[in-house]
Parts: sequence; structure tokens; C-alpha cells
Amino acid sequence: MSEKKKLPVGSVIGILGGGQLGKLLSISASQLGFKTHIFDPDPKAPAKQVTNLSSTFDYKDKLALAKFANSVDVITFEFENIPVETIQICEEFTNVFPNIKSLSTCQDRSTEKKFLHEMNIPSSPFVTAKSFHEILQSVNTLDPPLILKTCRFGYDGKGQKIIYSKEGIESAASEFTDTQVILEKLIDFKLEISTIICRDMYGKIAVFDPAENQHQNGILIESKVPANIPFALASDAILIASKIVNALEYVGVMGIEFFVTKDNELLVNELAPRVHNSGHWTQSGCLINQFEQHIRAISGWPIGNGKRHSNVLMQNVLGESVKALVNDSDSSVNIYGKDDPREGRKMGHKNYIT
Amino acid sequence: MSEKKKLPVGSVIGILGGGQLGKLLSISASQLGFKTHIFDPDPKAPAKQVTNLSSTFDYKDKLALAKFANSVDVITFEFENIPVETIQICEEFTNVFPNIKSLSTCQDRSTEKKFLHEMNIPSSPFVTAKSFHEILQSVNTLDPPLILKTCRFGYDGKGQKIIYSKEGIESAASEFTDTQVILEKLIDFKLEISTIICRDMYGKIAVFDPAENQHQNGILIESKVPANIPFALASDAILIASKIVNALEYVGVMGIEFFVTKDNELLVNELAPRVHNSGHWTQSGCLINQFEQHIRAISGWPIGNGKRHSNVLMQNVLGESVKALVNDSDSSVNIYGKDDPREGRKMGHKNYIT
Repeated sequence: MSEKKKLPVGSVIGILGGGQLGKLLSISASQLGFKTHIFDPDPKAPAKQVTNLSSTFDYKDKLALAKFANSVDVITFEFENIPVETIQICEEFTNVFPNIKSLSTCQDRSTEKKFLHEMNIPSSPFVTAKSFHEILQSVNTLDPPLILKTCRFGYDGKGQKIIYSKEGIESAASEFTDTQVILEKLIDFKLEISTIICRDMYGKIAVFDPAENQHQNGILIESKVPANIPFALASDAILIASKIVNALEYVGVMGIEFFVTKDNELLVNELAPRVHNSGHWTQSGCLINQFEQHIRAISGWPIGNGKRHSNVLMQNVLGESVKALVNDSDSSVNIYGKDDPREGRKMGHKNYIT
Repeated sequence: MSEKKKLPVGSVIGILGGGQLGKLLSISASQLGFKTHIFDPDPKAPAKQVTNLSSTFDYKDKLALAKFANSVDVITFEFENIPVETIQICEEFTNVFPNIKSLSTCQDRSTEKKFLHEMNIPSSPFVTAKSFHEILQSVNTLDPPLILKTCRFGYDGKGQKIIYSKEGIESAASEFTDTQVILEKLIDFKLEISTIICRDMYGKIAVFDPAENQHQNGILIESKVPANIPFALASDAILIASKIVNALEYVGVMGIEFFVTKDNELLVNELAPRVHNSGHWTQSGCLINQFEQHIRAISGWPIGNGKRHSNVLMQNVLGESVKALVNDSDSSVNIYGKDDPREGRKMGHKNYIT
């Protein structure tokens, strides 16, 4: 199904995935007068705390998916590791946004890189490899330093390994013997930025100001707006982002991460077919935030203009440090409602107006 | 109970009343990492859409209240018509904020007026009356125009009648023969403003900028900040508001409505011991809005400073016009999730940054 329809107030939005992004999407949907239904195999998924409709089944449970899809008016997802088959089952019953093309392009790193390459969108040089032997061969094509990544299911720096020299490749490769990987030239970037872009089902596009991002051990630590970049670079990022969502006939919010090289070149690092951590600042900096924007797009409602009214610093809160937030009153606090504050786990975030 | 305690992340906030205010309180609580439990006799109460914990019983059901109060870590309420007995039962098991003193003072218009009078806080002249005969007598004390109001259960202009002349008093009085009423001098005001004030359990106070309000047929139509008043008047409103919450040992957010007379005098019109419609602009104008501020106060968390970053116009959306919001993208839209869009019923609101 891919019928364009404007959902009436009171319709039900189905959300696959009940983590913090599903939770924040659900909250925005309910502020717009929609009901929400969260589908997640984890009975304790945080998003299930903010709705009275939820399903607890595996993403491959056809019967449960059919029942879910039949009971809602549109479906979206909070993360790119949802199996394509799950979406295919749901699509038999109702609209799913973003579309399968976008999901399948972005959930495999090699597909994503090839898509960017075909579109003449600059990104880091790469080779793919399917075996220990192929990984070893890669240094004949690309000089280290390289970054070796699994093609699928990587997040927050997981499934990644940096290779600094030809000598280091063998030990790195031995950790990835039975999985499809990609080797990318490690970029010595000046800074990292991201754009949060939204495309509605009629082709209209709205972009938020690019944010400047800091990562530590592969995990986003903070985002700030405005980014410390010239206007021309911000425009380029926005143009590239719009080229991507148009090519994919994308509907909803997409997060696109870029490297800014020392020569002020833009390289696309990653596409996320969903609302994005580096867009959480929009909750405090914009009249309509990324979550509301996404819900508006997938419901056929007009999207807002993404205008920013304030400078914002967003900081992630990891692991046990979430407990200290009970003493914080200078920021707008979001705590996700996860039970287990493991080290490095995203437990919440804070927005400061700066 | 009235123990001061700082609730840990993951605690459960109990909310009596599941209308739009309960819904927006629940959303703010869940953004802070709390779970919420909504208690409302209406199974379709909108707030029940934004949590997986709810109870559907009468406010006088002792057993249900005991079970509810026992299962949550603190209790608050969304409106002043909750019976005092309900709070008394809940208090046997856990903290309830605001306190009974505040609730009982504000839920009866004559008690409220007497409280203001004793505190030397200016408000309109008034007399109370218990019978048809006493109402007729009132014109011996106060000259018309008067406004006749029931002491309890009035909202959005319901239970009110204006008396323009001595001749009109008999017919007005005949509508209120078996209820306690209050007759107030009708104020020929220049404008109406309100302050939204928050006091935490340690006595700290934070105030939002006074808003300028427009009513139609007793129903709030719009609020805007900043109000078109001199700084001295805004300061006076804030000082009066702080005097009120201190005297009541109030914990949480209170809405206080004022008339500004043609002589630039301030008269308190009404106290609402809860988050207030004229504070909805804080969702789009402040880093920490009135709902989060209230949850922070009743949870023992530090409250924010109420600083405003933008000028905002808030408009209420009444009755059937809620359906047109699906075409709106210039404002931040809140739709409450009520089934029945009766004429004049508050169905949602919109915030514009101006």
C-alpha cells in the first residue's frame, strides 16, 4: 500500500520499536490527537509506558504483525534494524512510512555506500568484503588508516574496528570472519555535522539547521546549533540531504551525518531512516520538533518549516549518570525510562538554551 | 502525609483526573522518566491514552482510591472539583500536592474570596447568599452591575449570570434558588492577565511571565506573552501570587487570574490550584513548561526558572473547529483526544511564536 491520505484526528499510529525514539514519537503523536500502538518484543520497552495500546511479539511473528497492522491507520518504525520482511507483512494491510526502499538502502552499510556512490554524493572511499581473505586484500585498494564495519546491525560504535596500519589488519579481520563487512578510509575530519530533514508524501521538504556533533567511542555525546560552519557548507548539506530523500521517495524524518574535512569538504557518513539523536535539540529550539514533524509527514498532515528560535546544546546522558538528573533544573530533561543503566547506554538527554 | 522526598527516576505519579490537563501532566512526567497512573471515572478520559496504568472508578470509591494511592509514589490532581474527601483518603497512603488547604480554599468561591480579603489582597467587592431572599437583599449592599456565581463547580463561564440592574435581580435569582452563591461587583476592566506560579516543597518559587488573556462567553479564547502591561504591574502580580502560594504552603503550579482596571489597579479574579489553560503558551515559550514545572515541584526535584525565550500567542480550539487542525502547520498543535466535539468545548490549543 502507498495510498496518500490525511489521517483524521483520533487515528491510530503504529510504531515498530519501543525504545526512546518510539517513546518520543508516541508522545508527539498523542499531542496531535492521535492514538498510538507500540509493537516491540520487549515487554518493558519504554514506549509502552506512554500508551495504552501495545503488542509484545517477535518482529517475525506474521500473525501478530497482521493483527497489529490491521488495527492501526499507518505504521512507522523507530530504527533501521527492523527486518524488511516485517515491513512487507505490514504493508499488506496499511501504509508504512518510510518506504522499504529507504529502509533496505540504509540498513545495510554497503547498499547505502553504493547508493551514495551512484548518486555522485561524496562519501569516504570504501571496499566491501565477505571473508577473512577479502578483508586482507582490501589494503591493496585502500591505504590504512581504515575503519572496518559490519554491514548490518551496527549502532553507537558497535561492530566497528579501526585499522591503523597494514600490520594491524590481520588481528582486526579475525574478529569479523563470518559476517559481511565494509572497509572505509578513516577520515581525518575537522568536525561532524548532521542534518535532520523531513519529506512529506506530497514531496514537500523541510530541514532543520545542521547541528555540530561530538562523538566519544562511537557514541554521540553532544549536538549543538548553530554548527560552527560557513553558510555555504550548511546549504550544501541541505542540498545533499534533499537529493537523498527525493531519490528514495522518502516520507518522514531522516538523519544524515556528515564529516567536514580539513579542506572544508562534505562527506556523507551515515543515513538514518528515522528520527535521530542529533535532532533532539529541536524539542527545545523549534516550534515543531523532529518527532512531531515525522508524525505529521506520515499522517499526510502539512509539515512545519523547521525554523529555529533559539541556540541549543543537547547532551546525551549515559549509564548511571542518569541518576544525577534529579538534581538538574537548568536544562530540559528527557529520561527514557529504561530499567538497566548499563555503562555507555543512552538513558536520557538534556537540552540547554545557550 | 506531607513528607518531603525527592522521587527517584522510575517512580509512579498518580493523577486524579484524566482530561487535557491530566494528559499534558502525564506526558511531562514520562519525559522526566516517571511512570504515571491516571484515576478518572470516565473510561475514555483522554489522559488514559498516554499511559499504561489507569483506574476507572468514582472519586468516592474508598477501596479503589486506597489501592490507587498505595500503588503510586505521589498524587496530584488536574482540577479543583475533586472532593476533599478523595484527597483525605489518598493522604492516608502517600503525599498529595497541592495540599487540602489549597484545594478547599480554591474550590469554593466564597472561601477563596474570604481568603483574599483576610490577606488584604485586592479583589472585587462581594457578598455571599444562600437563598432567593438573600440574593434579593444583596442589592442593598452592592450596586449592580453584579455577577452572580455558584460557589462551587463553575468552570468556563458555567454557573454564572450577570445582573445589570436592580430590576433584573429577581429573574436571575430564580435560577439559583437551591445553591450557595456569591454576588460580585462586575468589574469594568481594561484587560485580563494571569500569572502561572510554581512553589516547590522547600519553599522556592518560580514564576512565568504574566499572560494577557481574552475570554468569550466566559471561556478563554487566547493568551499572549508578553502582556501589554507596564513592568510595575507585572511585578505587583508576581508579588501577589507569591504571597498567595506562601500563605497556602502550596506545592505545585497555580494559575491566578487578575483584572487590570481602567485605573491600572490589579484585582485578583480567580485562583486555580493546578496547571492552567492560560499557561499553555509555556510549552512553546520556555525551556521548562508549566506541566514539567508542576511535576518537578510535586516530586521534590528542583524547579526551573520560568525564563521565556520567545513571544507566544496561544489560541484555544473549541468544538468542531478541531477538525480543521489537520491543515495547520504554522503553530504547535495540541489536540486533547476527546471524542465529542460539543460546541464551546475545549478540544485543543495552538501556540504561535510571534
